[in-house]
Parts: sequence; C-alpha cells; structure tokens
Amino acid sequence: MFNRVVEAYERIRKVVNRTPVMTSSTLDMMTGAMCFFKCENFQKAGAFKFRGAYNALSQLSPRQKEKGVITHSSGNHAQALALAAKLMDIKAVIVMPENAPKVKVAATKGYGAEVVFCSSSPRDREGVAQALVERFGYALIHPSNDLEIIAGAGTVAFEFLKEVGELDVVFCPVGGGGLLSGTAVAAKGLFPAVKVIGVEPQNADDAYRSLKVGRILPMEDPDTIADGLRSSLGSNTFRIIRENVDEIVTVSEGEIVDAMQFLWERMKLVVEPSGAVSLAGVLSGQVDLGSERVGIIISGGNVDVTDFFIRLRRRIVA
Amino acid sequence: MFNRVVEAYERIRKVVNRTPVMTSSTLDMMTGAMCFFKCENFQKAGAFKFRGAYNALSQLSPRQKEKGVITHSSGNHAQALALAAKLMDIKAVIVMPENAPKVKVAATKGYGAEVVFCSSSPRDREGVAQALVERFGYALIHPSNDLEIIAGAGTVAFEFLKEVGELDVVFCPVGGGGLLSGTAVAAKGLFPAVKVIGVEPQNADDAYRSLKVGRILPMEDPDTIADGLRSSLGSNTFRIIRENVDEIVTVSEGEIVDAMQFLWERMKLVVEPSGAVSLAGVLSGQVDLGSERVGIIISGGNVDVTDFFIRLRRRIVA
Repeated sequence: MFNRVVEAYERIRKVVNRTPVMTSSTLDMMTGAMCFFKCENFQKAGAFKFRGAYNALSQLSPRQKEKGVITHSSGNHAQALALAAKLMDIKAVIVMPENAPKVKVAATKGYGAEVVFCSSSPRDREGVAQALVERFGYALIHPSNDLEIIAGAGTVAFEFLKEVGELDVVFCPVGGGGLLSGTAVAAKGLFPAVKVIGVEPQNADDAYRSLKVGRILPMEDPDTIADGLRSSLGSNTFRIIRENVDEIVTVSEGEIVDAMQFLWERMKLVVEPSGAVSLAGVLSGQVDLGSERVGIIISGGNVDVTDFFIRLRRRIVA
Repeated sequence: MFNRVVEAYERIRKVVNRTPVMTSSTLDMMTGAMCFFKCENFQKAGAFKFRGAYNALSQLSPRQKEKGVITHSSGNHAQALALAAKLMDIKAVIVMPENAPKVKVAATKGYGAEVVFCSSSPRDREGVAQALVERFGYALIHPSNDLEIIAGAGTVAFEFLKEVGELDVVFCPVGGGGLLSGTAVAAKGLFPAVKVIGVEPQNADDAYRSLKVGRILPMEDPDTIADGLRSSLGSNTFRIIRENVDEIVTVSEGEIVDAMQFLWERMKLVVEPSGAVSLAGVLSGQVDLGSERVGIIISGGNVDVTDFFIRLRRRIVA
C-alpha cells in the first residue's frame, strides 16, 4: 500500500496545493513537545479530500470518465470530487444528507456538480447512490473506503514527513478512516517507528469500538459537531487501521470546540470542527508526549461563517 | 532609511516569525493578476507590530530598559510591545482607549503589561501617556511615528520581496502610516520600480486627504470597523509616505468586510478588519492590475471570535 501512496503523490503533486506546516510556541509550552501542524485547510476545496478525489478520478478509464462519477458525502469529499471532476471535465453527481452544512452544499454546486439530497442515515446515502449507479452507469467513488482515495489521503502524511523529517507521533482525525489509513501507511512507510494515533469524537466512536471488539460496528446517524467524522469505517479502512494504527483516543464535543478556538484565536487558522479533532486529542492529555516531536494533521477548514459576517456587517457605519 | 530596515532585519530576524506567503487561484482568476499575500496575521502577537516593537526596544539604553516603556495603542502595537518587553524583561505600560477590542486588551494584560485606559480621542491618549512619561521617566515608543518602529515594520516587505522577487505593485493598509512607510522604503530599496499603494478606510481617510493638500490633517475619533487604522499620520510617516508612496486609495466599510470574508471563507485565514483593507483595495478595482505581480500585505489577525464560539458551544450535544 505504501507504494500506492508514492505513486499517487507522483500523479497529483503538480495539481494539489503543497500545504504549509505551521508551529505554535504557545502550544509547545503547553505540551512540552515540539508540535508541527500539517494544514490541509489550505488544500484546494478546503480539505485533504481533494488529494484522494483527484487521484481516484485520474485512474478511471476513458469510458468511465465519459459516463461520469457519483459519491455520497456530507461535504468535503463532495466538494473535492466536484472540483476534481470539473478540472478533468467529468460529470459529477453528489448524494448529500439534508443536514449537510449549507456552505458545503453551496460550494459543491458551485463547482458544477449535480447534488441529490437524501436523509442523514448512512444507509440511505449509500442506497440512493447505488440506485443512480445502476440507472446511469456512473462510477462510484466511495469517500473513504476506496483504495485510490486512501492512497491520495496518504499523500498528506507523505508530504508532511518528507518536509519535517521523522516524528515520534502523529495525531490524525478518524471518520470513515480514509485519512487515518493513508496517514498510517505513509508515516510508517517512511519511518517505521512513528506512532500513529487516531482521534475520534466520543459521539461518533465507531472506530474506537470496532477496533476494540475486532469487527466493524457502524453507527447510525451519530450526532457530533465534527460533521466530517460522522461516517463509519469500511472494510478496507478497518483492516488497514487495525494493522497500522497504534491507538484510537476519543474526545468530547467541548474538547473539539476548545481546540478549534485555539486554532482560530492563537494560530489564526480557519479550521472546521473535524479539522480540530486531532489537536483536541493532543490537548486531552491521553497520550504522554514527553518532549517528543508531534505531528498534528488539520484535515479541513470548511466551516460556515455566514452568521459571523452578518453580525459584523450590522456594526458597520455607512 | 533603507539601511535602517536592513539593520532592523538583522537585529530581529531570529526572534520574529518568518511569516508565510500565500496565494489564491480564485483571486488570480478574479483579478487577472498573480497575487501574493504576506501573512503577518501569523506574526508573534498576531500582527506585524511585533517587528517594530522588538526592534525599538532592542535599541534602548540599559538605563531606559530599567525604567520601562510606555505607549498608547488601540491594540496591536499594545500587544506587540507588551510581548517584546516581556521577552526582554522590561516593564511596559500601555495606554489604551476604552473602546479597544476586549480580546486585544486581554492579550495585552496576558503578556504582563500594565494597562491604563483613556478616552478614544487620539489627543487624550497622547496626553495620558505624556503625563506618565513625565512622572515615571518611561521611554515613550510611539506606535507608528518612531523611526525604529518604521524600520521594523519595513522588514515585512523586505522579507516578502526577498522571498517572492520583484513585484509590480504592493498594496498596504495605512493608519498611523508606520507599515506603509516601512513598506515603501523597503520595497523601493530592493526594487526601485515597484509601485506602492496605501489603502485606507473612507471613514478614516486622513492620509488620503493629508497627501492631497500637502499637510497633516489629523482626524478626531474616526469610526471604522478597521480598529487598527483609526490613528492619523505623524511627522515622519507623512514625510516618508509623501516621498515614497505612489497613491492612496480609500475603501468603504462594506468593501473591508467583503475582503475579510473572502480571506476567511476562501483562504481559511483569520484576518482582522484592518488586515483585510489591502485586499479590499485590490478588489475595489481602483488600480488597474493588468497581468501584474501583485503583493498584498495582511497586517494582522487579532479579531474577537468569542461570540462565534459561544454560539458554536450552544450547538453541542453533551
């Protein structure tokens, strides 16, 4: 699988943003560690998802490209696939839950994709997408369980560790598990001794529980502010995570918002709740950091700030 | 003055953050230009001001350092001087207007400075500071008109153009004029042909009007959302700007908030209103950009997001 990440990187590196690595002396003081943030909120379409989407689409046959692609996603994969499809002139259909953030729906449509709504149940999403595949012959690009999606996601850690060198531990959010799978494969492929920690919301802790009992325990419609992490592990991500990830820790909703506020106020980074989960894992103190070199993956920055700006405009003196 | 910038950079470069340069393909498409952002919102204490503050303090005599320093500032210079003084173990007293953003007051106190409040009138600020200078012998570090402050501010453009190479035009916000003075001196010192444009809120357009009539026309208590740009030009900044800046354009309050929203939503950068003013100048279309290489200085990111996070916490499911 590591070779697949390296190949994916060769394929996509000229198109994706090489996102910056940031540090915070405040956080280093708080933790006693040297922390490095890989800022995928600065990726095209606002999240790491663009890497996997572009990688997966570039592997399709000419016939598949002609028919178009479909996926189901609460938002970031939707936007990413829509943008990647637009860049390659491929038709994209996105099945989105009705409760997806408006800003993500708008951006997906803005990239020219066709949006089909479904209920917020993961089963319903998959059913709706499957019916359209059967009817129109679209290629289904699963948001996390597809191996090309995982390899693309792995390029985040590949690029990150190529830049900063060996790390002792890397914290990574886990929802469907594509990013965590790719991160574990890439990080350990480069530096076998690096520890990889998955961080998951307590309110959507299917990965934590699945790893514990040794089989996939999907969750129906979990309620967490980290909207990008509501999906459950799939067959491939479960297997890769079980083999390569050292530990999964869970964090409360309050810890997620606290981490997000730190990133906004202290580091001036617009990060969405899902993107702040890995920092929440660091700050939760569940993993002893000593004076280690710590990697923290910020997965995305697509958060709705419409209300904030409506309020700000009310303060304007004409 | 250019040599002073170079010397300042030698003095401070190991302490200041070397802030990243960012780009936006969306903005490049919108403008037809190649735009580069120098992101001083990632500077220590959240704004470019730290550069000048650290430079000025490092030039004080041992006796001055022992007595302590004072300044008046609505916020960013306050925080910057407080932090620089803390790093050098110097006492700092900051005179702040009562209407300064709470988050800036809190940060200033957080760095260990003593805060003295005054009314929001620039004259009152200076009066209060002067009285304390006379009583306690503090060294007064003016937030913009001090030549060491200007030289420190000039290191932003110096570092920026050293990294990206020659630019055709640089947009820079103007309040008291320290950043604009330093930017013009540094940019033209490196590349004499670069055009330097100051951008100012229409609601605080003293620099625009002063340059037009050829003498300083200070403004009493201007009302703009760009709280960092409410102060007026001083003797040094007026002279340097008159000699080195090509044009000053003004932007409306709505244009400032629109630019800020673009930076947050599309570029994932937490930027304060004053920091978005230079982009507002670009987007206002007053300067013909053609296909030029355009530099845009983002001066700071200290904005109060407390309410946003209070609202977000209300959405949490425990």
